[in-house]
Amino acid sequence: MADWEHRPRCDEAPAWAQLAQEARRFTGEGAFDLRAAFADDAQRAQRFALRAPQVFADLSKNLWDEPVRALLTQLAEQCRVEQWRDAMLAGERVNVSEQRPATHVHWRWAPDAPTSVENCATDAINLQETRRILDDMLAYAEEVRADAAITDVVNIGIGGSDLGPRLLAQAFAATAAAGAADGPRVHFVSNMDGHQMAQTLRGLRAESTLFIIVSKTFSTAETMQNAASARQWFEEQGGRDTARHFTAVSANTEAAARFGVGRCFGFDAGVGGRYSLWSPVGLAVAIAAGAQAFEALRHGAREMDAHFASASLADNLPVQLALLDVWQRNFLGFSSRCIAPYHHGLRSLPAYLQQLEMESNGKRVDAHGRTLPFASAPVTWGQVGSNGQHAFFQALHQGSDVVPVEFVLVRRAAHSLPGHHEKLLANALAQSRALMLGQEGDAPERHFPGNRPSTTLLLPDLGAASLGAVLALYEHRTAALGALWGANSFDQWGVELGKRHAGDIADCLRQGSSAGMDASTAMLLDEMHALPSV
Amino acid sequence: MADWEHRPRCDEAPAWAQLAQEARRFTGEGAFDLRAAFADDAQRAQRFALRAPQVFADLSKNLWDEPVRALLTQLAEQCRVEQWRDAMLAGERVNVSEQRPATHVHWRWAPDAPTSVENCATDAINLQETRRILDDMLAYAEEVRADAAITDVVNIGIGGSDLGPRLLAQAFAATAAAGAADGPRVHFVSNMDGHQMAQTLRGLRAESTLFIIVSKTFSTAETMQNAASARQWFEEQGGRDTARHFTAVSANTEAAARFGVGRCFGFDAGVGGRYSLWSPVGLAVAIAAGAQAFEALRHGAREMDAHFASASLADNLPVQLALLDVWQRNFLGFSSRCIAPYHHGLRSLPAYLQQLEMESNGKRVDAHGRTLPFASAPVTWGQVGSNGQHAFFQALHQGSDVVPVEFVLVRRAAHSLPGHHEKLLANALAQSRALMLGQEGDAPERHFPGNRPSTTLLLPDLGAASLGAVLALYEHRTAALGALWGANSFDQWGVELGKRHAGDIADCLRQGSSAGMDASTAMLLDEMHALPSV
Repeated sequence: MADWEHRPRCDEAPAWAQLAQEARRFTGEGAFDLRAAFADDAQRAQRFALRAPQVFADLSKNLWDEPVRALLTQLAEQCRVEQWRDAMLAGERVNVSEQRPATHVHWRWAPDAPTSVENCATDAINLQETRRILDDMLAYAEEVRADAAITDVVNIGIGGSDLGPRLLAQAFAATAAAGAADGPRVHFVSNMDGHQMAQTLRGLRAESTLFIIVSKTFSTAETMQNAASARQWFEEQGGRDTARHFTAVSANTEAAARFGVGRCFGFDAGVGGRYSLWSPVGLAVAIAAGAQAFEALRHGAREMDAHFASASLADNLPVQLALLDVWQRNFLGFSSRCIAPYHHGLRSLPAYLQQLEMESNGKRVDAHGRTLPFASAPVTWGQVGSNGQHAFFQALHQGSDVVPVEFVLVRRAAHSLPGHHEKLLANALAQSRALMLGQEGDAPERHFPGNRPSTTLLLPDLGAASLGAVLALYEHRTAALGALWGANSFDQWGVELGKRHAGDIADCLRQGSSAGMDASTAMLLDEMHALPSV
Repeated sequence: MADWEHRPRCDEAPAWAQLAQEARRFTGEGAFDLRAAFADDAQRAQRFALRAPQVFADLSKNLWDEPVRALLTQLAEQCRVEQWRDAMLAGERVNVSEQRPATHVHWRWAPDAPTSVENCATDAINLQETRRILDDMLAYAEEVRADAAITDVVNIGIGGSDLGPRLLAQAFAATAAAGAADGPRVHFVSNMDGHQMAQTLRGLRAESTLFIIVSKTFSTAETMQNAASARQWFEEQGGRDTARHFTAVSANTEAAARFGVGRCFGFDAGVGGRYSLWSPVGLAVAIAAGAQAFEALRHGAREMDAHFASASLADNLPVQLALLDVWQRNFLGFSSRCIAPYHHGLRSLPAYLQQLEMESNGKRVDAHGRTLPFASAPVTWGQVGSNGQHAFFQALHQGSDVVPVEFVLVRRAAHSLPGHHEKLLANALAQSRALMLGQEGDAPERHFPGNRPSTTLLLPDLGAASLGAVLALYEHRTAALGALWGANSFDQWGVELGKRHAGDIADCLRQGSSAGMDASTAMLLDEMHALPSV
């Protein structure tokens, strides 16, 4: 076993017990209070601020202090997070249950690794080969953008083949200069629910539509169903050149060819779905925003890779965020984390992070198969700001549970409507301030307890480079958290069981039967059989 | 004080302590197990099924049994939930901190209350007057739909003036027959972030656009900012007839008139934002789907009102769901609730319920100002199915925390693409089955513990009547839960503090200052000042 494989799990590291000791200061009478902490230390804000490429992070409004942070950093050291990180970056088989490397980072390096990454020479992936595929993919994206006959592109994919590309397409659309409507409209269809595909197809014409089918295995049930419906619609509409109007992104080039696509952009098995947008899975992004934007995105991510690879544990933003997650989850007992991106272009960030974090670290065993004796991934949830303020922020301020909030702010607006952006940023800062300061109420219902934690990430703008950097930041934070917990952040066995049952139940529905089902499922099937289906 | 005002709070009712006793059977060695419960009782599914108008509910896959349910029903009785319900329906001032009734139900009754509601004669609201306003509003909606010169309608509102109407517009759009594109396109702009308004305005023309400004007070910061930008854009584009192109929905008719709207549809102060879609706040819905659909929506809700008003506590679906919430939150300790609507038209249901539930019951004091000694609203979150399966369901199946899931299924599809709908429903049933049954794994990472709870709500279709019924169900469940907890589900003082800070911080941003701010906010302001803002 390599050195990174027999690292201590966080609860086996000496710092763990010391942290449990420290955690006592954070509950009960005389517990740590943010207001007092700021009063006692004029440098607290600066002390808990971190800089990484494109991101300024204020971690000072969290329920921790210097002794806690020092112990957490020791925890990372004791768990040999750096060795693990180097192994991941070097393409070692950190996805142990599937005996695969995690090669998503390498897709943004091609053709060269950042200079800060040493020993990344790896036979896990051929950087020249990924560069060639990306060049092909980007040339094709520009071809599609320049093709006046193609007005609409439909990305058919689900999970990682949908959430990342959709987030980015929305971000680029929100920040595009007014009138900069070059390139086709890009639509996303993911759901097995046919209402989504039916609604998308309304208003499209076969001869001006390109479908991109994105599935690593080319067997994802939803994607195959949607692809089949798209092809049937295409043929019914008189479409003839299937090869021109259907393109695939898949590691299973044979199945894609059998379907009838004209082009298929492949990638290696080491790219996990939720980490895949840097690979040809990002084709829809490249079509929406152009090859140059896609390269700038990769560049921004690569800068964050360099930071992750080289910054000391104490200054390493992904690592420090992961350590804060450990502290909040395992010692302060917070069961969820609220994401509040204050930018319309980031409205899908909570959904994207839900997959990234909960699918990566929502695990019950460690990478060696031992049951985890502590809580793993919390619930990741949230809404775009300022909308959330008029929805659930009531509960954040005055509810019974403490929920740490992560504000994501963007300094520069890409629109010219006066007044909005200053008020938007002011609202975000006002919320984090109000959560911390609270207020003595003149009536009980107007009392705000305060001392509620938040993190603020500030980006200079929502350009391709900052988007790349912040997504890479989240990826590394997630993987570092998994490394601390000893979990494999790159597999997802938990999605398999439901898939198996679905086939049997679909048979029952078609046959009007409920045989062989548990009593509850049988009752629901019988209810369905009794209702009109058309 | 009226009888409903000095009801016992749930923890003061005798059943509370008995429930705490029962809860011991649900933890540790030999704890309650769903698989054993079904094996022991062939009628468990039927026993825990409930019927309400348009909704069949399967509560059997939850971690409760007959003794628990009986005690919970006693709890509702001891807390006099029925008296409280009757008081709410009769228009008494159940919103005690603001000394207002909760009149949203009455808006769907006009001109007559359901016959099952007795003693609803109330001076809280004049049903004839609400009927007149609705008639005006619906006539106007039809006028707009018939006006070929208006191709686009922009609803400007946030929180309850956005989430409910948006959910319904999406639901109606998803189920509209292909080609049934009568009526204008309806857009929603809510965010203070100008990127949303700027992106919406691209592609619109002043002479063919109608803006609806929705704000009870006509002073909501986001809405006023967006309305001002819309009017400025309108004028810059050469639009002249502001009165024709701007309409208001507001209780503040004077301010709306000063803005320059041509029409203003009013409503009373007793309609809370998150309960307001039945009032003229639903104008965008009526324009999107037509007056007839809006009336059918109200009718469906009214059927649920009649059920809530007349069904016994044991058969009362909103009450039983609220009791299950109490059990899961206060005795089983679950800190969040996942909403999984398996219908593209319901993709905003999680966001809608986030506001409804967390703003209503995310409280720290009861209606008498006493600090609640138990947990109130959990985090409500989720995603449309089947998408969620490819995102966070990993954590639901194999994560460390138990998260109860609420599946919402719709029997009948409104599209004709073959295969999709059966597989969609099968996937939903398969997930609830897999969560419950689990699986012995041949490897630790393939082990599924099972015994994970879920509720399934089955609707016959996603027509106006079933949408009305299910939204009224959620409203009553939320208010009943508040009544059990002793909380006021109709105020939201927790949103005030942040608003106050926002003004000061916006001044700082404009002036390049950070004076008077806490050190963290000051640091973030200074960072912003150092970055280019344009």
